[in-house]
Amino acid sequence: MAKRMVYSFGGKKAQGSAKMKNLLGGKGANLAEMTNLGIPVPPGFTITTEVCIDYMKKKTLPGSLKPEVKAALQRTEKIMGRNFGNIDNPLLLSVRSGARSSMPGMMETVLNIGLTKKTIQGLIKQSGDQRFVYDAYRRLIMMYSDVVMEKAAGIESKDNQGIRRQLEEIMDRMKQDKGYKTDVDLKPQDLEELCDQFKARIKKIIGKEFPDDCYEQLWGGIKAVFASWNGKRAVSYRRIEGIPDEWGTAVNVQAMVFGNLSKSSATGVAFTRNPANGDNNFYGEYLERAQGEDVVAGIRTPAPLNEYSKSDQNRNLCSLEESMPELYKELDSYRRRLEKHYRDMQDIEFTIENGCLFMLQTRVGKRNGPAAVRMVLDMLKEKSISKEEAVMRVSPSQIDELLHPMIDPKVEITIRPIAKGLPAGPGGAAGQVVFSSNDAVSWTKLGKKVILVREETNPEDVEGMRAARGILTARGGMTSHAALVARGWGKCCIVGCSTLNIDADRKVLRIGEKTIQEGEWLTLNGTKGNIYTEQLPMIESAEENVMLQEFLHICDQIRKLGVRANADTPSDAQRARRFGAQGIGLMRTEHMFYGKGCEEPLFRLRKMIMSKTEAERRKAVEELYPYVKKDIKGVLEAMDGLPVVMRLLDPPLHEFVPREKSRLEQLANDLGISQEELTQRAESLHESNPMMGHRGVRLGITYPEITAMQVQAVFEATAELIKEGKKPHPEIMVPVVAEAKELITIKKMVDDIYQNACKKYGMKKIPYMYGTMIEIPRACLTADQIAQTVEFFSYGTNDLTQMGFGFSRDDIGGFLQDYIQKNILPEDPFQSIDQCGIGELIKIGIERGRSVNPKLEIGICGEHGGEPKSVHFCHKVGMDYVSCSPFRVPIARLAAAHAVILDQEPKKKVSKKRKKRKI
Amino acid sequence: MAKRMVYSFGGKKAQGSAKMKNLLGGKGANLAEMTNLGIPVPPGFTITTEVCIDYMKKKTLPGSLKPEVKAALQRTEKIMGRNFGNIDNPLLLSVRSGARSSMPGMMETVLNIGLTKKTIQGLIKQSGDQRFVYDAYRRLIMMYSDVVMEKAAGIESKDNQGIRRQLEEIMDRMKQDKGYKTDVDLKPQDLEELCDQFKARIKKIIGKEFPDDCYEQLWGGIKAVFASWNGKRAVSYRRIEGIPDEWGTAVNVQAMVFGNLSKSSATGVAFTRNPANGDNNFYGEYLERAQGEDVVAGIRTPAPLNEYSKSDQNRNLCSLEESMPELYKELDSYRRRLEKHYRDMQDIEFTIENGCLFMLQTRVGKRNGPAAVRMVLDMLKEKSISKEEAVMRVSPSQIDELLHPMIDPKVEITIRPIAKGLPAGPGGAAGQVVFSSNDAVSWTKLGKKVILVREETNPEDVEGMRAARGILTARGGMTSHAALVARGWGKCCIVGCSTLNIDADRKVLRIGEKTIQEGEWLTLNGTKGNIYTEQLPMIESAEENVMLQEFLHICDQIRKLGVRANADTPSDAQRARRFGAQGIGLMRTEHMFYGKGCEEPLFRLRKMIMSKTEAERRKAVEELYPYVKKDIKGVLEAMDGLPVVMRLLDPPLHEFVPREKSRLEQLANDLGISQEELTQRAESLHESNPMMGHRGVRLGITYPEITAMQVQAVFEATAELIKEGKKPHPEIMVPVVAEAKELITIKKMVDDIYQNACKKYGMKKIPYMYGTMIEIPRACLTADQIAQTVEFFSYGTNDLTQMGFGFSRDDIGGFLQDYIQKNILPEDPFQSIDQCGIGELIKIGIERGRSVNPKLEIGICGEHGGEPKSVHFCHKVGMDYVSCSPFRVPIARLAAAHAVILDQEPKKKVSKKRKKRKI
Repeated sequence: MAKRMVYSFGGKKAQGSAKMKNLLGGKGANLAEMTNLGIPVPPGFTITTEVCIDYMKKKTLPGSLKPEVKAALQRTEKIMGRNFGNIDNPLLLSVRSGARSSMPGMMETVLNIGLTKKTIQGLIKQSGDQRFVYDAYRRLIMMYSDVVMEKAAGIESKDNQGIRRQLEEIMDRMKQDKGYKTDVDLKPQDLEELCDQFKARIKKIIGKEFPDDCYEQLWGGIKAVFASWNGKRAVSYRRIEGIPDEWGTAVNVQAMVFGNLSKSSATGVAFTRNPANGDNNFYGEYLERAQGEDVVAGIRTPAPLNEYSKSDQNRNLCSLEESMPELYKELDSYRRRLEKHYRDMQDIEFTIENGCLFMLQTRVGKRNGPAAVRMVLDMLKEKSISKEEAVMRVSPSQIDELLHPMIDPKVEITIRPIAKGLPAGPGGAAGQVVFSSNDAVSWTKLGKKVILVREETNPEDVEGMRAARGILTARGGMTSHAALVARGWGKCCIVGCSTLNIDADRKVLRIGEKTIQEGEWLTLNGTKGNIYTEQLPMIESAEENVMLQEFLHICDQIRKLGVRANADTPSDAQRARRFGAQGIGLMRTEHMFYGKGCEEPLFRLRKMIMSKTEAERRKAVEELYPYVKKDIKGVLEAMDGLPVVMRLLDPPLHEFVPREKSRLEQLANDLGISQEELTQRAESLHESNPMMGHRGVRLGITYPEITAMQVQAVFEATAELIKEGKKPHPEIMVPVVAEAKELITIKKMVDDIYQNACKKYGMKKIPYMYGTMIEIPRACLTADQIAQTVEFFSYGTNDLTQMGFGFSRDDIGGFLQDYIQKNILPEDPFQSIDQCGIGELIKIGIERGRSVNPKLEIGICGEHGGEPKSVHFCHKVGMDYVSCSPFRVPIARLAAAHAVILDQEPKKKVSKKRKKRKI
Repeated sequence: MAKRMVYSFGGKKAQGSAKMKNLLGGKGANLAEMTNLGIPVPPGFTITTEVCIDYMKKKTLPGSLKPEVKAALQRTEKIMGRNFGNIDNPLLLSVRSGARSSMPGMMETVLNIGLTKKTIQGLIKQSGDQRFVYDAYRRLIMMYSDVVMEKAAGIESKDNQGIRRQLEEIMDRMKQDKGYKTDVDLKPQDLEELCDQFKARIKKIIGKEFPDDCYEQLWGGIKAVFASWNGKRAVSYRRIEGIPDEWGTAVNVQAMVFGNLSKSSATGVAFTRNPANGDNNFYGEYLERAQGEDVVAGIRTPAPLNEYSKSDQNRNLCSLEESMPELYKELDSYRRRLEKHYRDMQDIEFTIENGCLFMLQTRVGKRNGPAAVRMVLDMLKEKSISKEEAVMRVSPSQIDELLHPMIDPKVEITIRPIAKGLPAGPGGAAGQVVFSSNDAVSWTKLGKKVILVREETNPEDVEGMRAARGILTARGGMTSHAALVARGWGKCCIVGCSTLNIDADRKVLRIGEKTIQEGEWLTLNGTKGNIYTEQLPMIESAEENVMLQEFLHICDQIRKLGVRANADTPSDAQRARRFGAQGIGLMRTEHMFYGKGCEEPLFRLRKMIMSKTEAERRKAVEELYPYVKKDIKGVLEAMDGLPVVMRLLDPPLHEFVPREKSRLEQLANDLGISQEELTQRAESLHESNPMMGHRGVRLGITYPEITAMQVQAVFEATAELIKEGKKPHPEIMVPVVAEAKELITIKKMVDDIYQNACKKYGMKKIPYMYGTMIEIPRACLTADQIAQTVEFFSYGTNDLTQMGFGFSRDDIGGFLQDYIQKNILPEDPFQSIDQCGIGELIKIGIERGRSVNPKLEIGICGEHGGEPKSVHFCHKVGMDYVSCSPFRVPIARLAAAHAVILDQEPKKKVSKKRKKRKI
């Protein structure tokens, strides 16, 4: 290791800068940057992440580190005018971790390093505050024994049985014995005694003396911070956040400053703008005479930073602005300087030692969705950031927050969920539990809010699902029926919660030992998958959020991908338009049979399905025709001027067979056949693997009359709308295609019906496009043949993922969790496109398709179309548009803009080939 | 059309040759070849297939054809010394079709063209035989009116209602009126009157006179033959045989010679060797004083050609060898010359006119399997053909004939099947119908032969399936459970016969209006899928056929692909070895639980499946261990010295859940849980799409103890065999892999178990290979990652076809027939690899796999491994071996040799890269 390992900062000069985050970690880089900006920072130095990586490999620190540290320490001593280990004028140090990106609380910190029997006396003399010094020593012993000694000794601390807990117990016992209420009551001599007791206990447990050498303390601290990179907590945090193991952490060694030294000492945290709503106001809180950990510990209520930060809880306390106006002014000037410098809202920490202000940290502040949008719009107006920066600073999940009601986060944080499921439909919902679709409908009519709880849902539950505030199921995955329907409506939904034990007959739900009767309250957090008993308060969404619209228009200026919505009814189509959809990418013609008011068409559909002869079926199809046409016309009208992709009948017929006995009876009666005969017909539709069975175009080939009816409805609806002065753009999409000849066969039929429709309406032509869903692996592989027969491809990535992985989305629950836990899969491939496998199929399909038909319009209509990483992938592989549920259209608009910015470099190469084509 | 359109032959000189089959058709090319060989052939000419194709397009003959025909006709007249249309010395002509490959009976023929009122008189004078001439005229009128006039008039003849039938009725009535028994009784004047009656009826129906102009007759005949290329029969024959529409037919116009002219006239057909058994003996039959059609009509029993051709039916008749020894000798000399020239057995037709021998046709003779093998071995010994030719002359289906009993073809041809299904297991079987597995077993014990008839089969039927002679199911496809199991055993099986209506409770089977009770006889032709009532006679197979062995050894010398077998038990493995398998490509470890004597392990397996906790499961797994080890050891021992690929547990667990109530009760009792609990556990295993559910490696990941048990059994069995002096070569195969990390996870477990086994047996190493099944599309796409973790790939093309097409093999019955009929798919992709789609996936997998691991061993173990076209594909894409059911091993050996020869050219390029690697 010939490279520099240690970077000093302090005295308005630093060797590092904010650009060196990879080497110095976020904290270290920003400390250097602040120093260079002339902002007062306690001096110190950063040991690089490279040293950490090296230490992880070799389990020993490089020999040349010691002299570098020594030299840096000397610079620190010089700036502070104190010396480490010096008896009269001792310098104390903090040792803190600092990775490239923030991992709050995941790694270790040791404060007050440098206190030994000797320096304690010097510090007492110097500060004149014996209590302060012994309290600092007490803190050092507690932290150090826990962080350094226990770990070095290889003693794993299990659930509060570790040394720290034992020392806390000693302290509690002393307080109890002496009748003290809080730590503050402890006298200096109490603390001194406590330190002795601590050291004795440590000796007993670890078999080693607490080190009384300041350098031993320092090196122990440095090694412990490095080692904490591979601690259990840090590793699992990295798994969740996707942070690579190879980054390593830096170590920041800094002169201690004390917010608890005197009455004119304090410590606080602040945000340069309000992180909860984006207001351009300084916002924060502080504690007089305290150290940072005291703020976190919540022993005292922190005071507001200024007038603006006052709330009902702290209005009676004196603000920093009031108590130390000069220092507040100084702090506010740093706030302005930092925000101007970093051009983003900062989260800062400060300490005031004896009337002297020090900045301990600055970093980009976390914010919620509304705040994020507001801040970037403000900063754009202030001209401090570019459009691209504005777009990049808002995350898709922040947009999502704006679109759904949510549980009040202040309340939610205080309560434990009783169960967790898969977060299938985002947002929050509270309601009374019901166990059937009918109950959900009737209770809602009575003005009640309900949560519908089902083992799993099927099309017969749709009315109840629409009525309910939220949906909770015990089975199914992220793309199960419940999840798909709920997401389509933007409804809160949790699925696959396997700890639920539902007894729908007795109307009771068991979760572990807890029993919930019909009518009791549940609250769902569909964004996280958390389930709570009781009714938690909600924050409502702002569907027509003006700032959001403004922000999304900026995204639209940047993105290349078109964004359409999946919608099945005129009202869904209208909502999609409001959310900015540029067309319908998927209208599932069969979805008109689900839900309220659909009894008539559903009944006729069932009649069609139960027909045995072609004649029977033709009759049923004719009866069905007016309903289908009306529906198609409605959606085309709602999307006037924009394209609507209409998918021909897709699911296996048995999905429409009624399950309830009463409905079966009714159907048999109306069909004029025996119950036995009906049952037999229904059974003959049963399939072993319906997902790969007789469905989609296969139905169209074997029962051409069904396809013909749908196609006729499209042409006639279109012709009528044109006569009415509208501009319909239907795109007929054939599903489940595996082979080009399937499309040729259907096309012949389409051509005939087209001719008839033109004749009937006296029109020379009726506008339409003919295309196919690409959802079967073979379709990707033979896309060069398929593309010769169609004008567009629309990737159905749900099915493509199913077939490509051989994963039935309904059955994946049995092993998916194990797969993710064991790191076999990074995530659920039904959530985000599996780019290295399924993505390859998609690329092959696009390449082969465009190789013979360069004008081919290519989109995606699977659930992935609204997932940001997948949207980025769709952009990269050259699709024309994505289509997703209306509620995800804003997210897709943002993600598509992100994709352009992230791919800035490659874009230049591609841009000549791909025109901006949004529809 | 500037090219020559007409090719003459006759007078020992011909313009064409045997090489010109594409242009002249098979018949025309061989007539030319025989002429050039100096063999007497009635002179004539061939109009090319190109004229046919042109005529099909333009619906009119090219103008320049007439002079070419005229010139050729003049040459014919000159050779024959007779003139077409001449009154004194008339030449009569035949007009026959002749396509590139033989399409027997599918197209039209007109004989005796040139008979008119005038020429009739001349011919009577010349032949002195009035009866002969009017009989010839009668034949001309019947053929011509049917073939030429009726079709030209656009009258479609429906089911015997056509003109031919009407003329036959007139003839029958005359015979009846006059009290004649056969045609031979008709007097010359009867025939003359008949001709008049015929012509009158033709006039009445068609509204046109029968043409009395010889050229009109000739051109009518030529056009009719061309037109018959697009006749209904010919088109559907081409569909079945895969003959392209673009080939067209040639027309052969030839001078008539008459086998029915005098007592020293005759006609016959013969084979240069016996086509039924391959004996190198001249074999044939003939009729004195007859025309070719009389032999076919079967009015008289034909006489044997020679002593060798005598049989019980014709022993009393005088052979040609006896009656015309000189002519027989001449014929025999032509036989020798033709066979020597064509170097293959010929099927010849000859006519003797007034003591003068003419050859009418020679072509490669059809033969059955045993004959085909015998002939090529003999010809190899005679050194008349090369090894490659020998191999190419035997088709896979001929080999198949040698391996299974078959219905006596002489009997089968006379009987109509009552139903057709999918030919799932080849060969024939006759037996009494039973409807349950138990009945099949108990009836068989009583010495009865049974056919097991089931809606569909499941693992509980396996005992009955083994006991039955044949299996018949109403549902399922070519790779359904019944089909897979039956083929594995070489058992006759027909599946997916949807016209069956099975009432297993009442033990009755309905097919249309026919009712079959338990115990009635059925005969199955599993090669064709035909089902017959009654008991038909069988010809038994010759499993240990010496000639077959000899022939297959020649194939082995040529082929590059290794051939392994799929076998699950020691006895199957032994049979596979006898059939020449070079290893086991697939041992399904779970198959040990099916069938007789497996109650104990099956019970323990079920216990394992029904376990809820890991502890319960571990216990069950331990109990199961000895059975699994014994089984694995048995197969490894049977294959001593050869590799055995052992697949870890593959199917979804619910497949093993018992369906019978009594077994469920027993299981609940033995597990010590309530029936309710057991039912609940069984239900929790239910999956919506089990084929894409929790199976294969997914089970191995979630229940590692099951995998560990199997792997331990492999290592311990191997170690014990080595200690016993054997050479086991186990290959551990992980199924249903979609992602490399699945394999890495399992490998860690394998490594641990390996270390333990080595320690336990005190061995430094235990030989084994680690590999994966490639059966999920994603595995092909990520093969470069997967290949880094394994030593071999084995393609599971059944599942790859399922996932690649999105076709559930159990549910394909609903639409597959429509797909094939509508020409959307050329054939069932589960039968022969879909090369353009699934084949692409396979190629991608091989390329990506070998790109990172050039030594990767690659094979196939899906059902396709024994299908000739698929074997060829496997060879082409560079696999190392195929694996198939033991009964198909000989077929695969042949097909692999065919592949080498067919790919002779590409082979040269590839051969450097691919070493001959058979195992």
